[in-house]
Amino acid sequence: MHRDILVRWLDEFLKSREITKQLRDPSLNGLQVEGREQVHKIGAAVDAAQATIDKAREQGVDFMIVHHGLFWGGDMPVVGIHKRRLEALFQGGINLYASHLPLDVHPEVGNNALIAQALGLQNLEPFEVGFIGNLFRPHALSEIGDRLGQITGMQCLIHQGGPNEVTRVAVVSGSASDYVAQAKAAGAELLITGEPKHQNFHPTFELGMNAIYAGHYDTETFGVKALAERIEREFGLPWVFLEHPTGL
Amino acid sequence: MHRDILVRWLDEFLKSREITKQLRDPSLNGLQVEGREQVHKIGAAVDAAQATIDKAREQGVDFMIVHHGLFWGGDMPVVGIHKRRLEALFQGGINLYASHLPLDVHPEVGNNALIAQALGLQNLEPFEVGFIGNLFRPHALSEIGDRLGQITGMQCLIHQGGPNEVTRVAVVSGSASDYVAQAKAAGAELLITGEPKHQNFHPTFELGMNAIYAGHYDTETFGVKALAERIEREFGLPWVFLEHPTGL
Amino acid sequence: MHRDILVRWLDEFLKSREITKQLRDPSLNGLQVEGREQVHKIGAAVDAAQATIDKAREQGVDFMIVHHGLFWGGDMPVVGIHKRRLEALFQGGINLYASHLPLDVHPEVGNNALIAQALGLQNLEPFEVGFIGNLFRPHALSEIGDRLGQITGMQCLIHQGGPNEVTRVAVVSGSASDYVAQAKAAGAELLITGEPKHQNFHPTFELGMNAIYAGHYDTETFGVKALAERIEREFGLPWVFLEHPTGL
Amino acid sequence: MHRDILVRWLDEFLKSREITKQLRDPSLNGLQVEGREQVHKIGAAVDAAQATIDKAREQGVDFMIVHHGLFWGGDMPVVGIHKRRLEALFQGGINLYASHLPLDVHPEVGNNALIAQALGLQNLEPFEVGFIGNLFRPHALSEIGDRLGQITGMQCLIHQGGPNEVTRVAVVSGSASDYVAQAKAAGAELLITGEPKHQNFHPTFELGMNAIYAGHYDTETFGVKALAERIEREFGLPWVFLEHPTGL
Amino acid sequence: MHRDILVRWLDEFLKSREITKQLRDPSLNGLQVEGREQVHKIGAAVDAAQATIDKAREQGVDFMIVHHGLFWGGDMPVVGIHKRRLEALFQGGINLYASHLPLDVHPEVGNNALIAQALGLQNLEPFEVGFIGNLFRPHALSEIGDRLGQITGMQCLIHQGGPNEVTRVAVVSGSASDYVAQAKAAGAELLITGEPKHQNFHPTFELGMNAIYAGHYDTETFGVKALAERIEREFGLPWVFLEHPTGL
Amino acid sequence: MHRDILVRWLDEFLKSREITKQLRDPSLNGLQVEGREQVHKIGAAVDAAQATIDKAREQGVDFMIVHHGLFWGGDMPVVGIHKRRLEALFQGGINLYASHLPLDVHPEVGNNALIAQALGLQNLEPFEVGFIGNLFRPHALSEIGDRLGQITGMQCLIHQGGPNEVTRVAVVSGSASDYVAQAKAAGAELLITGEPKHQNFHPTFELGMNAIYAGHYDTETFGVKALAERIEREFGLPWVFLEHPTGL
Repeated sequence: MHRDILVRWLDEFLKSREITKQLRDPSLNGLQVEGREQVHKIGAAVDAAQATIDKAREQGVDFMIVHHGLFWGGDMPVVGIHKRRLEALFQGGINLYASHLPLDVHPEVGNNALIAQALGLQNLEPFEVGFIGNLFRPHALSEIGDRLGQITGMQCLIHQGGPNEVTRVAVVSGSASDYVAQAKAAGAELLITGEPKHQNFHPTFELGMNAIYAGHYDTETFGVKALAERIEREFGLPWVFLEHPTGL
Repeated sequence: MHRDILVRWLDEFLKSREITKQLRDPSLNGLQVEGREQVHKIGAAVDAAQATIDKAREQGVDFMIVHHGLFWGGDMPVVGIHKRRLEALFQGGINLYASHLPLDVHPEVGNNALIAQALGLQNLEPFEVGFIGNLFRPHALSEIGDRLGQITGMQCLIHQGGPNEVTRVAVVSGSASDYVAQAKAAGAELLITGEPKHQNFHPTFELGMNAIYAGHYDTETFGVKALAERIEREFGLPWVFLEHPTGL
Repeated sequence: MHRDILVRWLDEFLKSREITKQLRDPSLNGLQVEGREQVHKIGAAVDAAQATIDKAREQGVDFMIVHHGLFWGGDMPVVGIHKRRLEALFQGGINLYASHLPLDVHPEVGNNALIAQALGLQNLEPFEVGFIGNLFRPHALSEIGDRLGQITGMQCLIHQGGPNEVTRVAVVSGSASDYVAQAKAAGAELLITGEPKHQNFHPTFELGMNAIYAGHYDTETFGVKALAERIEREFGLPWVFLEHPTGL
Repeated sequence: MHRDILVRWLDEFLKSREITKQLRDPSLNGLQVEGREQVHKIGAAVDAAQATIDKAREQGVDFMIVHHGLFWGGDMPVVGIHKRRLEALFQGGINLYASHLPLDVHPEVGNNALIAQALGLQNLEPFEVGFIGNLFRPHALSEIGDRLGQITGMQCLIHQGGPNEVTRVAVVSGSASDYVAQAKAAGAELLITGEPKHQNFHPTFELGMNAIYAGHYDTETFGVKALAERIEREFGLPWVFLEHPTGL
Repeated sequence: MHRDILVRWLDEFLKSREITKQLRDPSLNGLQVEGREQVHKIGAAVDAAQATIDKAREQGVDFMIVHHGLFWGGDMPVVGIHKRRLEALFQGGINLYASHLPLDVHPEVGNNALIAQALGLQNLEPFEVGFIGNLFRPHALSEIGDRLGQITGMQCLIHQGGPNEVTRVAVVSGSASDYVAQAKAAGAELLITGEPKHQNFHPTFELGMNAIYAGHYDTETFGVKALAERIEREFGLPWVFLEHPTGL
Repeated sequence: MHRDILVRWLDEFLKSREITKQLRDPSLNGLQVEGREQVHKIGAAVDAAQATIDKAREQGVDFMIVHHGLFWGGDMPVVGIHKRRLEALFQGGINLYASHLPLDVHPEVGNNALIAQALGLQNLEPFEVGFIGNLFRPHALSEIGDRLGQITGMQCLIHQGGPNEVTRVAVVSGSASDYVAQAKAAGAELLITGEPKHQNFHPTFELGMNAIYAGHYDTETFGVKALAERIEREFGLPWVFLEHPTGL
């Protein structure tokens, strides 16, 4: 199909422009690099990096969808690793489409909606760039940690500053430990996010909160995969996942 | 001794005002909370948190020196954990002195100068808020990792994107993985810092750089301890280290 | 009653968050300092100062409501008079609730609505953070000054640059002489405010306007008193006024 | 003499450009309104207002020097009182030269240097936009108030929060009660300024400081008069003082 | 008629305040200089300059309407050419009313609506501060250039980077060559504006766009003339056009 | 020679970093796009555009030096004409080095120093981003215009608002008509720049100033040519000029 039609569909489906502006997302969401006009195969990846671009070329991908793109505000000279990434995209004729916060908040294919759904959270409400909701009955923290480990394939880090069993859970993928107090104020007993930060260690315990860190990379594979699947359903384009975990 | 004399000495020794302004440190460096007028015992801690304040009270500390204080810009209502921390300080009559970046850059008692010295780095030059220098001969990455593990007591995370053996090393304690490209540009083959970030994973490998993450907490115990020792030497005040590692 | 219930009621009744944001009030409106959980007695004061806090403690107040609180934007170390005020609040277990502009603009318990009502102004419309309205017939300036003197108990300063008799009057408590031109443009012949400023002396006369200065303190006792009365009616809590005039 | 020569001399003598930039003075210091090319008579005034401009015209002044000019940042349409002031200046062919902070800080003809000198303060050092210095022996507060009353001709307001007798005194003309804590920190027992503010009432008393308010207008007549005298000495031009006190 | 009535009518008819704020127009739109109270004759001009003000005085104009007024943000001392312009306005008793962007976007008397209408563009939609629309059939570029030359009386500069014949045309008077990419994205094959800029030369050709430059002055005579005519129809006031082309 | 050595030499020779920061140049001065490591042939151009890049490829250039590069602040997606320009550079292995204001102010190879020299201006002093100096005797305006026409090969536009003969001349290449008042204040009777703007038409005449517009493109060919020559002298690299005038 023609690249421009796909890009327009994505911009609308993800509300790229509106959400970027509303949430002041520094990411340049949308088509970041122009490739071939005719698109035949989608590649979904968490990061736009040399490793994932190389995999895309090996597998004949001509349209990459990533959560973390190449542009985050500010001029960047086209030198070094930035030049090599662009050159590889050009040589492969690969279009690069980035969706950062629009793919966090999306109710259908967003990282957080999908994690919340996998955990069985109910009565979801928006919480920062993720969601908050309730388990149908209290669950032990370790049980939730195990369940997350199953769906991400990575062992979680648990900081238990609150009760053993929890019902109300906030989910914000990536690096969102800064929201621990807001999660508490919204009634959550547990914040699930990707990556910990030293500075939020003490507040978690002093607030009597629980936090589960399930990996920055691992919590952000959901959105790009689901979006690629959605495109396949809508337009019949095949897709692959371009895996490259960081362990963080 | 009188608190005001000690505070004045610290402000000058650390160049608190000048460095805060010059480096736009958001931390309110200096005396953050006023306690007793007469100081008898110093407590050194990485973080001003309930756990370390409680330890200070138990051990009769009346002057805490911390790397991470309570004020980082912006109004904060005196409620919840902030209120409980202040109240504990008031009840213990404890003065709280914070020194963030001034204690990173200090050539004698700074976190980075001390790590560099422990590794035997020579010809030190300032690098961001840390230092860069040379080992007298090339060392294997794993060897440096082991040495860091010995001095911090925590096992390091090694991201090897560069050569097996390195000579030129940049050291910036805390969370400084953002400086990986600057370290490369300054000739380093290795950046040692505390805490990793997902976003700097790919750049490290693509730049052909090595990074060792030795822990945010663990890389920042050096400064406060050395500063407390320095005060003991200068004024004869006893001191204790108020340990509470975060594992991050 | 529980402090959190009272705080939530106040936040909603005064629309604290909305008005703070809308009017860019630098005051940290809402609960500024956390005291006892159970509230038994309200203390209303214009200023949160050592003198009023001490009176609150003497009279067994555990919840102070003030127009001028302790936080106005920007970090403040907890030292000197700020430390002593906080410590006195902590020792008395006193909650401190501040309401600056939300208590100026409030149509029922706001400073300006109450002054306007006491003067018999009709057809009130919002004017800056106060109100503008009409006397049912023209009144001599001196007559209005006398009436204000009766209700505040302080002699007013009158700057007569306009007609002897006035009908349309703007009321903005505190220090609002900067609005003299806006009051003229809105059809007023008289601006009533609290505190004069040298810089607005000439404009008042050149615009042909009248101004009555009834005292910063004296024009701002109305709101906190009325709010305390309202709480008594709603929740049955007794209250006292913590008087400490400044003469300004 | 030619206006441009006088303007250039004033700009240099007062260091208008440098001080405006350094102190971020919002006043447009320098020649604000161009009048006749040949200057014959200077008029000194605190404020550029209709009353003082009219007096200047009556007395044949063609070069006004004022502390408070017409421009303070931001566009202003030439309507109403602003239009009438400009038109009166044009019709009188009067040049208008404004000097705000440059005339506060000036060591020879500045408002503060002159007040300090009249009080006999010694070892003057710069303090904010004024000076701080010592009386040769302690003086009673009331004695200083009386002395100020004699030199300004206006009765002072005294806020005594500190000792009865003082030695070290800070002087900042105009509306500078915000500096009461800085004055204390600089060792002063008394701050002399022009105009009080409600918000600095409690801090004065709680800091144990004394404040004397000698009038905004009255503390700022010194500079423009001394500057006019200086011009007379330098260039032989006659001058008059265009008096119009505000009582504030 | 009374000046204030005319000013109020203009402010409302042009939505001066709303549009200034919405489009962040640096121009101080509205009455910039106050003249006589009774208005008898309108003068329309593109620029408020000595030449047009002098013509206004010669022709007995007491109310000038201009597209480019005297105030564009920031303080300006009343000296040199600014002083002479103001003095001439004062001496002529001339009111000066400025309307920058409100007179570009206006659907009835706006520069762009009138140019679009003269070219026969249909289905007009707003485009930046102008309009975009369609010719009822494709026209040769040179034909459109000739037509523009007829209505402005100035020969146009044509940069042909696109097709020989065009249907969809964007019109933005003044200096708007920066919008060439936006015009392309909105489907236009031609951007008509006033003044070229070197920096937009290459983009025009590389985008495959056409641009016609019909003169900054010449494209902005339409609005002020139409507005003056409208006033004549509404209030019966006579008007003249104060011509002074710049050739740019 | 190695690209990095040439880049480092250029950065130092032009003081790229210092001048960019000091003059807040929005241009990303320095190496903007990385090409081949080994440099054999320099191409000098005013603009980095498709036309000049294509010429560079045809002529075997592998290092372009331009006054106007591709990056001017702010993120730009790599699409459309920006993508095509980068791709052409990549395919040609061409390095792109940009120097905006550093090449305007340079005393040896700067646009303005060279124009000033060609006109025989003496006692040059910096003026904005150009120079001001004196002809050894008064010259007629038309004579200077003719001389400029000879050295640029383009006919100049002359706006004569001042004397027929001039001695003191300010030169600022590109689009610098905004500096006409500053040039007057610095004693110049003539401002030479590249591109006119409608908004500076009236001020030029009212100030009694002369302006000669010698073309934005044409006044900015000097610097890149001289810089390329300098490189040839220093390193023996051949160079070509990539001509593409805009007529503006």
